[in-house]
Amino acid sequence: MGNRWPVQATADRLMNATKKKVAHLHEHGCTPHLAVVLVGEDPASKVYVEHKIRACKSLGIHSTFKNLPDNSSTEDLLSAVRELNQNPRVHGILVQLPLPKHIEEQQVIHAIDPSKDVDGFHPINVGLLSLGQEGLFPCTPMGVMELLKDGGIPLKGKHAVIVGRSNIVGKPMAQLLLKEHCTVTILHSRTVNPEALCKQADIVVVAVGRPGLVDASWLKPGAWVVDIGINQITEKADAERLLKASGKKMANFIEKGHQLYGDVNYLSALQVADKVTPVPGGVGKLTIAHLMYNCTLAAERMVST
Amino acid sequence: MGNRWPVQATADRLMNATKKKVAHLHEHGCTPHLAVVLVGEDPASKVYVEHKIRACKSLGIHSTFKNLPDNSSTEDLLSAVRELNQNPRVHGILVQLPLPKHIEEQQVIHAIDPSKDVDGFHPINVGLLSLGQEGLFPCTPMGVMELLKDGGIPLKGKHAVIVGRSNIVGKPMAQLLLKEHCTVTILHSRTVNPEALCKQADIVVVAVGRPGLVDASWLKPGAWVVDIGINQITEKADAERLLKASGKKMANFIEKGHQLYGDVNYLSALQVADKVTPVPGGVGKLTIAHLMYNCTLAAERMVST
Repeated sequence: MGNRWPVQATADRLMNATKKKVAHLHEHGCTPHLAVVLVGEDPASKVYVEHKIRACKSLGIHSTFKNLPDNSSTEDLLSAVRELNQNPRVHGILVQLPLPKHIEEQQVIHAIDPSKDVDGFHPINVGLLSLGQEGLFPCTPMGVMELLKDGGIPLKGKHAVIVGRSNIVGKPMAQLLLKEHCTVTILHSRTVNPEALCKQADIVVVAVGRPGLVDASWLKPGAWVVDIGINQITEKADAERLLKASGKKMANFIEKGHQLYGDVNYLSALQVADKVTPVPGGVGKLTIAHLMYNCTLAAERMVST
Repeated sequence: MGNRWPVQATADRLMNATKKKVAHLHEHGCTPHLAVVLVGEDPASKVYVEHKIRACKSLGIHSTFKNLPDNSSTEDLLSAVRELNQNPRVHGILVQLPLPKHIEEQQVIHAIDPSKDVDGFHPINVGLLSLGQEGLFPCTPMGVMELLKDGGIPLKGKHAVIVGRSNIVGKPMAQLLLKEHCTVTILHSRTVNPEALCKQADIVVVAVGRPGLVDASWLKPGAWVVDIGINQITEKADAERLLKASGKKMANFIEKGHQLYGDVNYLSALQVADKVTPVPGGVGKLTIAHLMYNCTLAAERMVST
């Protein structure tokens, strides 16, 4: 029987380290500044943006928020990005994704100055990560690496299985685990017999967007399981299947008609794994902590050049 | 008992396809132009450069060769690269690697215009490959993908194991195989029990620089094996171990004191695998064929913009 992974401790460590960096920058007359751009009024996006701005405040990072109307054009967004690129007092630029469908997301990401690209999504940062060179790298995978390093066992030679091959999580996760000398396997929707492959893993990272996909039958005894999925359960059948074992979650579902749930069947996984990150209350705080770190890093690099 | 993989057929197909593209460009008044830069007089590099220039000639691609002296500075090389970047008649720039140790290789690669970067080593091209966007991608992995596609079996769902995690072969190979919906595992020097993991693979790609590392004991019956290693055997003990089974290679070693040998023990692997690429006479011709393709692609893109 495994344990709930104490994610908060790693998030606190990251936030404290960043706080020290910010204090040091303040002493040198620089206040790190994150500019967040949101197009439209999507409620989930607004909540994410609020969390990020609140984290900035807690660390002494200055933040500005630009909310463009839902019917903004790609060109409107591009010119907002260019203005932020040119503003020497802005160190980090974050365009909240997803963008409305009529906007050319790729063009917008390519337009962000790579040295201010605190999400690490610009192709040049993606390339620098793969090459093992200095850049700005995606916040969720970077945060997860900190969590793994806090696990107290050397990562070198461990077999890590990543379930999901997204540009935002799966692929950068593979690069980072390789860099720490893990053997890395990437599984995805076309994989034949993923359970058997996953069962070989010392470390499992799941990011596919399928509620409860990975359960005890996918895991080797003692495995470490990181759940990056955030799914909103709204169907009664899914609730019956996944939430029954947890009275609290089921009660919440019955009351509100929805419940957040990860890609891992948490209670089942705990039967076999050594530790499992919960959802909600899991890796999200690592993502935000690393975003703060990236913004401070961008400011440091701008000051030193 | 498997077969020698008919690499030449794929190389011929690629060269013919490129020849047609070149003819089309000629008709529109454009002659693709590859500029090759070599620093110093390394004999192996000179042979590689000659092969590339000869391939250009055979297809109607114009080539120029700039041989800088061995004691050139990073700045000398950077200014040569900048000149080629600015020359609108040059479509592809290839700086032959490795560079002498006193030159900042990374700085030179970063200086090449990504749209002329026919080796696909610039960080932005590395990132575009990972993101699944349009760019110029490394020639050996791209050539190997063509070979695999000629294998006559869909790649989707196959388990590919890559032995080696270099920036030039292992990592781009992983991206390309993922894109074709293979399940991908990357092994390297720190992997625990690599034989057992490799033995699960339908497709094995080896690029580590260790002569004869992979033999029958690493392979599943019917596996496809691509050998990207090129090692010069000069020690008698290695020759005794690896060349004994091949009278011709052993005779050559005894006569000349050296013999090229791949990362795969070819004769041993053939006992178990379905097909194995030989060394020498293997994937090298795919690399050159794809280099020609990249140069023509770069010219096409420049003409159409």
